[in-house]
Amino acid sequence: MTASEGTATGPAMHALMAELYPICRSITGNGFRQTLRRLGEIVPITLSEVPTGTPVFDWTVPKEWNIREAWIADPAGRRVVDFRNHSLHVVNYSVPVRQRMALAELRPKLHSLPDQPDLIPYRTAYYAEDWGFCLSHRQLEGLREGEYEVCIDSTLAPGHLTYGECLLPGEVSEEILVSVHSCHPSLANDNLSGMAVAVFLARQLAVAKRKHTIRFLFIPGTIGSITWLATHEAEAGRIRHGLVLSCLGDPGPSTYKRSRRGDALVDRAAAHVLAEEGASRVLDFIPYGYDERQYCSPGFDLAVGCLTRTPNGKFPEYHTSADNLDFVRPDALEDSLQKCLRIIEILERDEAYLNLNPKCEPQLGRRGLYRATGGRDLPGFEMALLWVLNLSDGRHTLLDIAQRSAVPFRVVLGAASALEGVGLLRALGSPLGHGSC
Amino acid sequence: MTASEGTATGPAMHALMAELYPICRSITGNGFRQTLRRLGEIVPITLSEVPTGTPVFDWTVPKEWNIREAWIADPAGRRVVDFRNHSLHVVNYSVPVRQRMALAELRPKLHSLPDQPDLIPYRTAYYAEDWGFCLSHRQLEGLREGEYEVCIDSTLAPGHLTYGECLLPGEVSEEILVSVHSCHPSLANDNLSGMAVAVFLARQLAVAKRKHTIRFLFIPGTIGSITWLATHEAEAGRIRHGLVLSCLGDPGPSTYKRSRRGDALVDRAAAHVLAEEGASRVLDFIPYGYDERQYCSPGFDLAVGCLTRTPNGKFPEYHTSADNLDFVRPDALEDSLQKCLRIIEILERDEAYLNLNPKCEPQLGRRGLYRATGGRDLPGFEMALLWVLNLSDGRHTLLDIAQRSAVPFRVVLGAASALEGVGLLRALGSPLGHGSC
Amino acid sequence: MTASEGTATGPAMHALMAELYPICRSITGNGFRQTLRRLGEIVPITLSEVPTGTPVFDWTVPKEWNIREAWIADPAGRRVVDFRNHSLHVVNYSVPVRQRMALAELRPKLHSLPDQPDLIPYRTAYYAEDWGFCLSHRQLEGLREGEYEVCIDSTLAPGHLTYGECLLPGEVSEEILVSVHSCHPSLANDNLSGMAVAVFLARQLAVAKRKHTIRFLFIPGTIGSITWLATHEAEAGRIRHGLVLSCLGDPGPSTYKRSRRGDALVDRAAAHVLAEEGASRVLDFIPYGYDERQYCSPGFDLAVGCLTRTPNGKFPEYHTSADNLDFVRPDALEDSLQKCLRIIEILERDEAYLNLNPKCEPQLGRRGLYRATGGRDLPGFEMALLWVLNLSDGRHTLLDIAQRSAVPFRVVLGAASALEGVGLLRALGSPLGHGSC
Repeated sequence: MTASEGTATGPAMHALMAELYPICRSITGNGFRQTLRRLGEIVPITLSEVPTGTPVFDWTVPKEWNIREAWIADPAGRRVVDFRNHSLHVVNYSVPVRQRMALAELRPKLHSLPDQPDLIPYRTAYYAEDWGFCLSHRQLEGLREGEYEVCIDSTLAPGHLTYGECLLPGEVSEEILVSVHSCHPSLANDNLSGMAVAVFLARQLAVAKRKHTIRFLFIPGTIGSITWLATHEAEAGRIRHGLVLSCLGDPGPSTYKRSRRGDALVDRAAAHVLAEEGASRVLDFIPYGYDERQYCSPGFDLAVGCLTRTPNGKFPEYHTSADNLDFVRPDALEDSLQKCLRIIEILERDEAYLNLNPKCEPQLGRRGLYRATGGRDLPGFEMALLWVLNLSDGRHTLLDIAQRSAVPFRVVLGAASALEGVGLLRALGSPLGHGSC
Repeated sequence: MTASEGTATGPAMHALMAELYPICRSITGNGFRQTLRRLGEIVPITLSEVPTGTPVFDWTVPKEWNIREAWIADPAGRRVVDFRNHSLHVVNYSVPVRQRMALAELRPKLHSLPDQPDLIPYRTAYYAEDWGFCLSHRQLEGLREGEYEVCIDSTLAPGHLTYGECLLPGEVSEEILVSVHSCHPSLANDNLSGMAVAVFLARQLAVAKRKHTIRFLFIPGTIGSITWLATHEAEAGRIRHGLVLSCLGDPGPSTYKRSRRGDALVDRAAAHVLAEEGASRVLDFIPYGYDERQYCSPGFDLAVGCLTRTPNGKFPEYHTSADNLDFVRPDALEDSLQKCLRIIEILERDEAYLNLNPKCEPQLGRRGLYRATGGRDLPGFEMALLWVLNLSDGRHTLLDIAQRSAVPFRVVLGAASALEGVGLLRALGSPLGHGSC
Repeated sequence: MTASEGTATGPAMHALMAELYPICRSITGNGFRQTLRRLGEIVPITLSEVPTGTPVFDWTVPKEWNIREAWIADPAGRRVVDFRNHSLHVVNYSVPVRQRMALAELRPKLHSLPDQPDLIPYRTAYYAEDWGFCLSHRQLEGLREGEYEVCIDSTLAPGHLTYGECLLPGEVSEEILVSVHSCHPSLANDNLSGMAVAVFLARQLAVAKRKHTIRFLFIPGTIGSITWLATHEAEAGRIRHGLVLSCLGDPGPSTYKRSRRGDALVDRAAAHVLAEEGASRVLDFIPYGYDERQYCSPGFDLAVGCLTRTPNGKFPEYHTSADNLDFVRPDALEDSLQKCLRIIEILERDEAYLNLNPKCEPQLGRRGLYRATGGRDLPGFEMALLWVLNLSDGRHTLLDIAQRSAVPFRVVLGAASALEGVGLLRALGSPLGHGSC
């Protein structure tokens, strides 16, 4: 991980997550709204409400779900499972229920993890009207025969699907999208970490000079991106680059999953930034994961990849009560934020330059850009100057040069600026068609 | 190896080989005809006879060779080498001889393998009028000085070159070629195994629905494919895909040798099928081997690869008496047959589909194609559904999808059928130019 | 390394280097002229003189430097450092100086290598008027306090930059360039070895049949190639292939650094020749090294690579007094010369041929090109015949065939000649555009 000027934001992100952790979010409802309002205290976030029943492509905006309490009382009347202790205890989107039933009858409604007997699983029933409870397998095995009372005091009724947007206008209307699913209940890495990194990223970018317009979406997974795309086709057409952010706080190395295109600028930028960290991984697109599934559906095929640390399903804490505040680390959050900034810097600053002295090398020494006494190895910055000069023929952008030379983009950018400063280089902008494909 | 419904054919193929093993085949003559007639009892095979002297490109159909007996008698009159014991004892295509000669004079006509002293080698003299005997080196070394009598009662005279064809008409005139050299004498893997697999493959395909016309050729090596190509240039122009089958019964892993083109559909199909077996090998084309040499000559450049287990020359039993019925295994024959069927299934069924709901994923759950309760890993078939939907943009065929997703073609095909069944997908046929290049 | 008919030239090259070793060369001056005159006794070399002050692209031809003596006398008057003992003792291009100074004052002008305390470093001050001495760190540490006398009796004055050319006219005006920096003082591998190999290469090529015109340049590094390019833009436009030769005598394996294009014919030819030696290395272009930096600047982008053994900066003797005559080996020089000859043979002889019998293989046996008795492995030359026939469709040159078959170019060339001799092949020349891009 890279230390930086902004390390103080790691603890701040973790503290924000701690505030949001107890809230029972779902794909609709007040827990989601409450979460967005807290994020909106850090950067301006506009909330939109889409009515239940709205058709969104092949889907329909579902009923709104809200829950007050949920518990199971044992034959002795003791509440042995209680939603107040952990929002994962209730199957998310459970319909209301209040009845007495024998353990054998209740048993099919109880979900546990025999292989991880101390953890509560995370289960959902979004598109099938059902109900259930989640509990540790150890607790499940301890339940004795007898009549239990179950109560889920929830409502599943016409209402709205909510999502939040933070739009940072740029010099051009072409957009960079940052999309964060914000619908999971008490799960820290998946995806309070993504929400915390996104909101602090937005806070930093809000005060920076921006070329692209940058749009942050805080949405419920799947149905949220489908709803936004169905209601914003024109805006979707302006998205040039995008990142889905998730699982950014665990101690594992960074992972980038390419967009469906595989060689979009965001794919190359993320690969370049991650290459500086030895253990990082860059994976090909697969049509399973987070909302990149929708952005990369063939009818949109947007250049949207997904940045995580350990990907979904690949850490044992995934979708269990062990994905808690201890599992996520301030330094990992900070490192993830820095990588987002470096990727976006490339999206913002990559362009081609033209060497104005293309025949033989220019004499850098008399311009103060080269050491005077020859004979030994060349320092990295001087090497970057030579690379920029050699490849600035109008066909290579700075990222092309950074990739071919294995010099970090920032150093290449610095070399280009220095050469531009002495009149040896001229910016050409993006090569024809580069930003648009 | 893959067990399948058809495992009973493994022993049947081996039994057929046992029947054919003793026959002395050559590139012409009655042994070859007798072999084809036996194969014709399993599937209909048409025999063609091309007269000696017929010009076929740069070659001429040779004289027909037939042999009745061949032996060497030692000074005491004992027949120490006798063709009746093993068809390999005579150099194939030996001209007739009957004479007495000293061992020293006979010695240059005797072929053995000093490094494999117990094995009889396989030698031919097709295009040089000569004669000779093959025997084990141990036997050769035991011959004592003295006058020997040699007899080869053969005829090398104007006659015919014979080949067999089994044509299975399809919906279209474009063809799949299966070519099998059938000229070797008592060698089991090379190539009674290819003949047995081909004839059982033809029997299965004969009762299946077929798109392509499928042509099986049972030919003498080299001169047979040259003769067929020279006399069927129009038919050759209809061959879209092809396989040369050889050495399909040894216990080694499967090997596919690419066509000269290297990226033809048959090359990709075979690589996909073989990839399911960890130890399998896919090799680049080289202009040495079997009849793919002729099909892939630059004037034809057909998309014909070669499927073997251990390739020619790479097993110590190759071209010796150790390539016998013990060396080939019923389960290996069966596995080879199944691989042929799977490759041909891809050649027959690969096409592009169009996702009719390309914007975001369709809701598979309400169509019964997706589990209702979320939270854990996705089963393989559901993953295949997502891959087919994501890549069915008209630019990817099912094999493209299978390769990119590493999902077996059959699963991808099943997913496409299911999606077509619920109206989410429409078949487009082969992408433009796909089948023809 | 490959033994060859010409091994006698290894010692001759080493002997030539021994003659030239003591001379103090620089980028201008009489040491350079004296060196070229000695090389001119082996092959005709034309010397050109370019006046100081001549503008050459972004640079200016510098003043001419000549030196007669340079020494440091210790407080007792003993000459403790003397240029007569080693030309590296003076910082190359030092301005004249004659003064007395305390050791502390002198100290910043003294260069040594603390990590290699017994070696004298090589230092230059070409483009900053300065002076200095180089000595071993051990000697530096032995200097006692006191007043020293320093003398550099040099002149840095208007004069000329000298370079040498040896032009071998060919059938066509398109050129192969061989460029050798010849400006370093007493350094054996860098680059007396390049000079020795180049001049013996020229001697051999001078008496051979040549297609291309071959130009050898003996130039001062950097400013020499810039000067030549600035004054020969028309000639530069005729260069089709080129090699910079340097560090060709050390015992390391051969290394080829690709041209900026990366896939030019010279890049492929060198990679093919070096592939025969297991330990050899082929490196991508970087814009640091020798004069390929100028030839590969984006305004020229010539197909010029660099052949070395151990590259510059990668051997501990580099730019020190340990790069001496013991460090370079006659057999390494000879091996380098042979590799140059084989690379140039490919540049000269690579072309496409057309198989005149493209349908099926021709019958090589009746033309005496194939063994008569079948049954075992194919010898290498027969395999080369099959490769040439199979790929000679007008789209593959001999080098393409050599690369694909992994058969040495010379064997492929021999096979093509044999096939041409029996009328099966016809030379087509370079494929369209091949030689010119």
